[in-house]
Amino acid sequence: MEKVAIGIDIGGTNTTFGFVNRQGEVLAKGSIPSQDREFFEDFLSDLYVEIQHVIQTYKGEFEIIGVGIGAPNGNFYHGTIEYAPNLRWKGIIHVADLFQQKFGLPAVLTNDANAAAIGEMVYGSAKNIRDFIMITLGTGVGSGIVVNGELVYGHDGFAGELGHVIIKENGRLCGCGRNGCLEAYCSAPGMKKTALKLIAQNTFQSTLCSIPPEELNSKHVADAAMAGDKLALEVFDYTGRILGLALANAVAFSSPKAIFLFGGPTAAGDILFVPLKKYFEDNLLPIFKQKVEILLSGLPAGDAAIVGASALVWKELF
Amino acid sequence: MEKVAIGIDIGGTNTTFGFVNRQGEVLAKGSIPSQDREFFEDFLSDLYVEIQHVIQTYKGEFEIIGVGIGAPNGNFYHGTIEYAPNLRWKGIIHVADLFQQKFGLPAVLTNDANAAAIGEMVYGSAKNIRDFIMITLGTGVGSGIVVNGELVYGHDGFAGELGHVIIKENGRLCGCGRNGCLEAYCSAPGMKKTALKLIAQNTFQSTLCSIPPEELNSKHVADAAMAGDKLALEVFDYTGRILGLALANAVAFSSPKAIFLFGGPTAAGDILFVPLKKYFEDNLLPIFKQKVEILLSGLPAGDAAIVGASALVWKELF
Repeated sequence: MEKVAIGIDIGGTNTTFGFVNRQGEVLAKGSIPSQDREFFEDFLSDLYVEIQHVIQTYKGEFEIIGVGIGAPNGNFYHGTIEYAPNLRWKGIIHVADLFQQKFGLPAVLTNDANAAAIGEMVYGSAKNIRDFIMITLGTGVGSGIVVNGELVYGHDGFAGELGHVIIKENGRLCGCGRNGCLEAYCSAPGMKKTALKLIAQNTFQSTLCSIPPEELNSKHVADAAMAGDKLALEVFDYTGRILGLALANAVAFSSPKAIFLFGGPTAAGDILFVPLKKYFEDNLLPIFKQKVEILLSGLPAGDAAIVGASALVWKELF
Repeated sequence: MEKVAIGIDIGGTNTTFGFVNRQGEVLAKGSIPSQDREFFEDFLSDLYVEIQHVIQTYKGEFEIIGVGIGAPNGNFYHGTIEYAPNLRWKGIIHVADLFQQKFGLPAVLTNDANAAAIGEMVYGSAKNIRDFIMITLGTGVGSGIVVNGELVYGHDGFAGELGHVIIKENGRLCGCGRNGCLEAYCSAPGMKKTALKLIAQNTFQSTLCSIPPEELNSKHVADAAMAGDKLALEVFDYTGRILGLALANAVAFSSPKAIFLFGGPTAAGDILFVPLKKYFEDNLLPIFKQKVEILLSGLPAGDAAIVGASALVWKELF
């Protein structure tokens, strides 16, 4: 019987799960809403029922060896979600223990960006790389840092918050309440802010000027940039400049062999990667120049979150 | 017979060595100039002769188990000194191999700040701490990063260059040729630059105004600050602000339990530590606040370099 891990991604809106084999193939999957239940225990019961349902409708056979969970503010050491601003359940929730009791299987949890980094190591493009950094670009900027083949969790389990490195003293307000974080510039909402700022500063015409600010998103900016819109291209140049500087600083820290990028804004391809790589090299300390690759993640875009979460089982439990 | 390690610190001016026991006590020591010999092999012969000389004059008995070497631009993986700007020998020198051949003992090398971090772990205040960062303040700003009880060397052996994290885009020129590095602000020469800048900007009297700029150094600034000089105190406030921001960013990376400071400028005590801790806490991401201690190194100030180098033998060879 084929061995599989259940990978679960608890997101702000939906929780998705999948049965993933050692090769990273998703054999079956499903999802439930994250916000319907006031108490985590009720949510967990719903999820359990749905997972049993998918198991029964799936025609193949497999042996489930464990549960891997990726979640915002997930703490690997304690198996907890702690004070997650985007989830309904407040305070500290002992998620891994509750899963273990409910499913009768070993369960392991970490934050979503760490899960992606482990996914890259187990199934993706980092299989033979012992030192790398995973950067996830989306609503926020997340990171997972791998040193000598092991994820860096830090003394409290919360290491790897590169999205909240302050890149400009007294810079843009960030969702965390501080100013100047990388996330305030290079997340999808950060790129929208850059676009609005450039619209305000410039006099030349841009197709982005026809979209009301409340509707404008980073996808519009990417589409406009791909159509050659000068202002949209400037947004990517600026994003590449800030991200390039932040990643060059990260290299001074852990000297990775590669940095992998994952998430929506990477779909712009060279429009993002060309300026990013230029500013990155410009800002590297001489001993690191031309040594560190910036690469697209090798995880499957649609299923990356559950695949990453399932990788936790192979990497951290077996 | 007591087991000892030889700790060797290769500095720009002098090379010092000592015989250090497992408790970190220096049983005997000596030094030779670093710049007298054009070829590294001749320098090594001189050093060998001097070490034999000290062994013979030392009355006690010990068994030497290995040689640990701290050096600028030292690479742990290759045992090499690579392109060290402050040393006479250019290019890549296979120092550990040459020591091993000459002394007939296992030899291990890393850069000076990494050696200090290992010294802190083996003999100092980090004996029971698995995640910490060592910061050395002096002519430059060095760092050694320890994650899960192991030094972070990175894929090429050059990780831990926090002195060259860019803290201000287009900021002060640094010795590395780039702009805005932490080292350009928080090294001893950086603090001197801050003093000169504040003298230029302010109108109030300072005792530092009586010292010609070419003579002014960070010790003058510390003495003036301790005597209550307002401008000198501002220099420490500014240094604490920049260093506090940089260390808060480092916490977002590896979430250490403590950060140890070592070197000349730390002698100012609270004049440095009070503003540093304030700005550090101000800049921490909420989940890290009040969790990370900033502490003085527990290594002996005078012998720290050789003690740190000797610690490499206990930690990395045995």
